[in-house]
Amino acid sequence: MTEAAAPSRRTRGGGGAARRAERTAVRIECAKYIERKIPNFEVLDEAALAIIEANAELVLEEIGVNFTGNPASLERWRAAGADVQGERVRFPRGMVRDLCKTAPAQFTQHARNPDRNVVIGGKNLVTAPVYGPPFVRDLEGGRRYATMADFEKFVKLGYMSKYLHHSGGTVCEPTDVAVNKRHLDMLLAHMTMSDKPFMGSVTEPSRAQDSVEMCEILFGKEFVQQNTVMTSLININSPLTFDETMMGALEVYARNNQAAIISPFIVGGAMAPVSVAGTLTQVLAEVMVGIAYSQLIRPGAPVIFGTFVTSIDMNSGAPTFGTPEASQILYGAGQLARRMNLPFRSGGGLCGSKLPDAQAAYESANTLNAALMGGVNFMLHACGWLEGGLVASFEKFVMDADQLGALHKMAEGVAVDENAQALDALREVGPGGHFLGCAHTQANFKQAFWRSDLLDYKPFETWIDDGARDTQSLAAARVEKLLRDYTPPPLDPDIKARLEAYVAEKKASMPDAFT
Amino acid sequence: MTEAAAPSRRTRGGGGAARRAERTAVRIECAKYIERKIPNFEVLDEAALAIIEANAELVLEEIGVNFTGNPASLERWRAAGADVQGERVRFPRGMVRDLCKTAPAQFTQHARNPDRNVVIGGKNLVTAPVYGPPFVRDLEGGRRYATMADFEKFVKLGYMSKYLHHSGGTVCEPTDVAVNKRHLDMLLAHMTMSDKPFMGSVTEPSRAQDSVEMCEILFGKEFVQQNTVMTSLININSPLTFDETMMGALEVYARNNQAAIISPFIVGGAMAPVSVAGTLTQVLAEVMVGIAYSQLIRPGAPVIFGTFVTSIDMNSGAPTFGTPEASQILYGAGQLARRMNLPFRSGGGLCGSKLPDAQAAYESANTLNAALMGGVNFMLHACGWLEGGLVASFEKFVMDADQLGALHKMAEGVAVDENAQALDALREVGPGGHFLGCAHTQANFKQAFWRSDLLDYKPFETWIDDGARDTQSLAAARVEKLLRDYTPPPLDPDIKARLEAYVAEKKASMPDAFT
Repeated sequence: MTEAAAPSRRTRGGGGAARRAERTAVRIECAKYIERKIPNFEVLDEAALAIIEANAELVLEEIGVNFTGNPASLERWRAAGADVQGERVRFPRGMVRDLCKTAPAQFTQHARNPDRNVVIGGKNLVTAPVYGPPFVRDLEGGRRYATMADFEKFVKLGYMSKYLHHSGGTVCEPTDVAVNKRHLDMLLAHMTMSDKPFMGSVTEPSRAQDSVEMCEILFGKEFVQQNTVMTSLININSPLTFDETMMGALEVYARNNQAAIISPFIVGGAMAPVSVAGTLTQVLAEVMVGIAYSQLIRPGAPVIFGTFVTSIDMNSGAPTFGTPEASQILYGAGQLARRMNLPFRSGGGLCGSKLPDAQAAYESANTLNAALMGGVNFMLHACGWLEGGLVASFEKFVMDADQLGALHKMAEGVAVDENAQALDALREVGPGGHFLGCAHTQANFKQAFWRSDLLDYKPFETWIDDGARDTQSLAAARVEKLLRDYTPPPLDPDIKARLEAYVAEKKASMPDAFT
Repeated sequence: MTEAAAPSRRTRGGGGAARRAERTAVRIECAKYIERKIPNFEVLDEAALAIIEANAELVLEEIGVNFTGNPASLERWRAAGADVQGERVRFPRGMVRDLCKTAPAQFTQHARNPDRNVVIGGKNLVTAPVYGPPFVRDLEGGRRYATMADFEKFVKLGYMSKYLHHSGGTVCEPTDVAVNKRHLDMLLAHMTMSDKPFMGSVTEPSRAQDSVEMCEILFGKEFVQQNTVMTSLININSPLTFDETMMGALEVYARNNQAAIISPFIVGGAMAPVSVAGTLTQVLAEVMVGIAYSQLIRPGAPVIFGTFVTSIDMNSGAPTFGTPEASQILYGAGQLARRMNLPFRSGGGLCGSKLPDAQAAYESANTLNAALMGGVNFMLHACGWLEGGLVASFEKFVMDADQLGALHKMAEGVAVDENAQALDALREVGPGGHFLGCAHTQANFKQAFWRSDLLDYKPFETWIDDGARDTQSLAAARVEKLLRDYTPPPLDPDIKARLEAYVAEKKASMPDAFT
C-alpha cells in the first residue's frame, strides 16, 4: 500500500554473522511521503477568495506591518518600493504578491539517507512530529519537564514510525540543557539517531547559523549551498509583527537556500479577529509579507505558506483544538496557498486534552482528516501533541503515528482497474454466498484493508483475558517495544566524530544562558 | 449558530406557579437538522462512476438476486418484466434504475412536535442514535445485557441531546422483554418519552404493521396515510439476497407511505468483494433492486439509499471501523446516490473499541467527518455506538452527541459578509495589538466559536484540582445530569392512554416468544 524503503540497517561484508544479523534485524519500514490521488476539499468559493485576497491587499496598503528591531530589513523594504515610517512598513497594492512569485512551487528536502528525501509541495503530504512542548507525559511517569533524554527517545520513536516522513525539530524542549546550547544537542540527535530529514534552530540567528554549519559537516559544504537540507519554522508575531529574532533566523536560512515555513501562530480572537474570514485575511497578509521578505534576501529561496490557528474558549480564554472553525481556516488557507502556487503547512494531531483520551483523539482526528482533505503539504505536529502543545506525549506519539497510516491509504484514492472491479468475485460467489474463500479475496486480502499496528481488534473474551487494556495502555506497550527494537541508522564514524567535536567546541565557547 | 426551537415544555395557564416553573425549567434545546452550505467531497471521477454503474447493471442482468421465501415478490418482478428462475431474479439492463425514478429526492418525516420534523435529502443531514446493540456499557456498571430500563434511558438522553434530530429505533435491544413484544415497548417509549421522529419495527411484517397502527393512534389515521411519520431500516442480506422478513416489512411500510432505508449491511471481504470498487458495485446493485421493489409496491414511496460497510481485519476476521476503505466506500456511495437523486444514509460514530477511549474516538471521528463531507442525509448510529455495534455506551452517547455540534458548525460554511470580514477590527488593533477587547470581538465572541458542552478546556491546575478526569468520566457525569434534568415532553393524556392500551392488548394476545 505504500512504498516501503529497504531496511535502513545495511550489514557490511559477508559471513554467517552478517547473515544472522540480517535475519534477526528489526525491519525498519518507512513509507514514502503521501502523494494524493484524491481531490482537495474547498470550503471557499471564488467570490469569497476574491474578497479575502482584496482585503489582505488593503490591510497591507493601509495598515501595514511592523518589522521590529531590524533596521536592515527596513532598508530592504524601502529599496523594494515599500512605504516605511519608523518600523511600520506599508506596501503598494500587489507588490508583496509579486515578490512571492520567485518562491518555488515545490522543493526537495534532502535527508542523509536519500531514500528519506521528501518533496514538499504539489499534491504531496509530508508528516513531521510535534514541535515545542516544554513538558512530556507518559503513562508511568505522568507529566514532567522534558529533558534531553526524552528528546532522544522521541527522535528514536520518529525514526521507528513508518508513516512519519520527517524527524521534526524541537520534539520537546530539553529543559536540562542551557537555552543557548540545547539546539546543538537537538541537531546532533536528529543527525545521528535518525536518517530522516529534520528542522533547524530558529531561536537566534546565530543558532540558525550553527544549524547550517552542522549540516555542512553532515552533507558537505557544497551540497548544502546547492540543496535544501533543512526546513525550519519561522513564526510570525501576530498580528502583523515580524521581530528581529525570527526574521534574523529567516535571513540566515534564505541566504543559505534552506527552507522556511512562514507561519502565523494565532489563537483566534486574541491574535486575529474572531471570525474565519477576518483571520484568513490576516493570515494571508502576514504570510505574503514573510515570503516576500525571504525572496528579498534570496530570490528562489524555498518557503512554505504556514497557518497555525486555533479557536479560543471565550469562557476561559483557553485555546481550543479540533474545532470546526480551525478546520475552516485550514481549508481556506490551503486554497489561498494553492492560488499562490506555494507549498502549504497546517494541521497536526492537535488537541487540548490533558490526557491521551477520547477528547484527544476526537480533536486530533478532526484535524488530521482536515489536513489530508485540505491539501496540506507539510504537517508539523502530526503526532505526539497533547494539552495544547504544552506536552509531548509518548503514548499519543504512537497513537497519532498509527493513524497517519490511515491517511496514506485514504490518499491513494479508489482503484477501478479490472482487478479492483472484482466482477469475477461477484460471479464466483453469487447471491447468498460469502467472499472469504473466493479467488479474488485470496489474491488481494493482504493489501486490501489498512490495518492498525496499535488498535484493538480482538474478540471481547480475548481482550478481557489480555487485561482489558485501553488505547493508552496499548500505546505504552508499543512505545516500549519500539524503543527496545531501536538500532541507530549507520553513519560514517568520521562525520559523527566531527559533529560531536563541533558541538563540544561550541558549548565550551560560551557560558550557559537560559534565554 | 443553529436554530434553537422553543423549550419543549410549555406551561399552560398563568399564575405565579407557572412563571416559577418557566424560570426553573431545564431549557431543552434542539438544533434544526443540518443544512449544508459546504460542498460534498467526491472521491470518484466520472470515469470511475461510469464503470461502477455499468458493472452494477451487468451484475443485475447476468448474476441477478434472490428473493427468498416470498412468492408474491417473484410475481411482482415477473409482471414488471424481470427474468425469474426459481427464486433468482435477473433484470434487463436499465430496468431497475428506471423503476427507482418514482422515488422522491427528499421527504419530510413528521414528528409529533412539528418543530422536530426533519427533511431527509438534498443538502440536509439528520442525525439518529445507535441502533441494535444487545449490550450496554457504562462506567459504573460495565458491560451487560441491555434491558428496557436502559432503552428508556437512551430515549431520554436522545431527547435531551441538542444536536440529535431523531430518536432512532432499537437504541439497544431490551433483552428482558420477549422478542415478539419488545417492539411495542420500544415504540411506546419513543412516542411518549420524546417528541422527536423515530423508526418502526422491521423484525416481522406483523410488527411493522403494529408500528403503523401505533402511529395511527399518535398522529391520526388519515395523517399517517398522507404523511411519512416513520423511517425504518430494511437491511439487505448481502450478497444479493432479499429475505421475506425484511421484504415483508418493506412491503408494509411502502404500502403505508412510510419511509424505508434500503441498506446493504456488509463486512467487506465477507459479504462483498475485498475491494472498494467491487463493494460499491454490489452496493449499487442491491440498493437499486430494493428501492425498485419499494416502488413496485407503491410508486412514490419514500426511501433512502443506504450503505453500511465495514472493512475487516484479515488476521482475525473482526469487522473494523473508521478505516480509510470504509470512508472511501461512504464517499463513493454518496456520489452514486446523488446521481440517482435519492437521499443517502451512511456513517455514524462507528468504532471497534471495547471502551469509549482514544481508539473509539479516532475511529468515530473519522466516520463522523466522512459522513458530513460525503453528503450523508440520514446518519444512523450518530452517537452511542461501541464495540462494533454490540454495545450501546451511555458515555459514548453523550461524547458523540457533543461532536455532532461541531458538524453543525462546520456545515454552515464560512461567512464573508462585512461583519465577518472584520476589517474594522484589523484597523482598530493594528500590528502588535490584541483583539480580545476590540469592538468586533465584543460584538461577536458569543457566536464566534463552537464550544463543547462536555470536553475539558480548563487550565492544568484547575483540572488537577477537579480530579484530573478523563473524557469518559466527564461523560458519565453528563449522562447523570441529563437524566436528572429530564422531564417528558407534553402529550395528550388520552392519546397516551390509547397507546398504552394498544400495547397491553397486543401483549396479552400472544404468548412470549424469543424469536
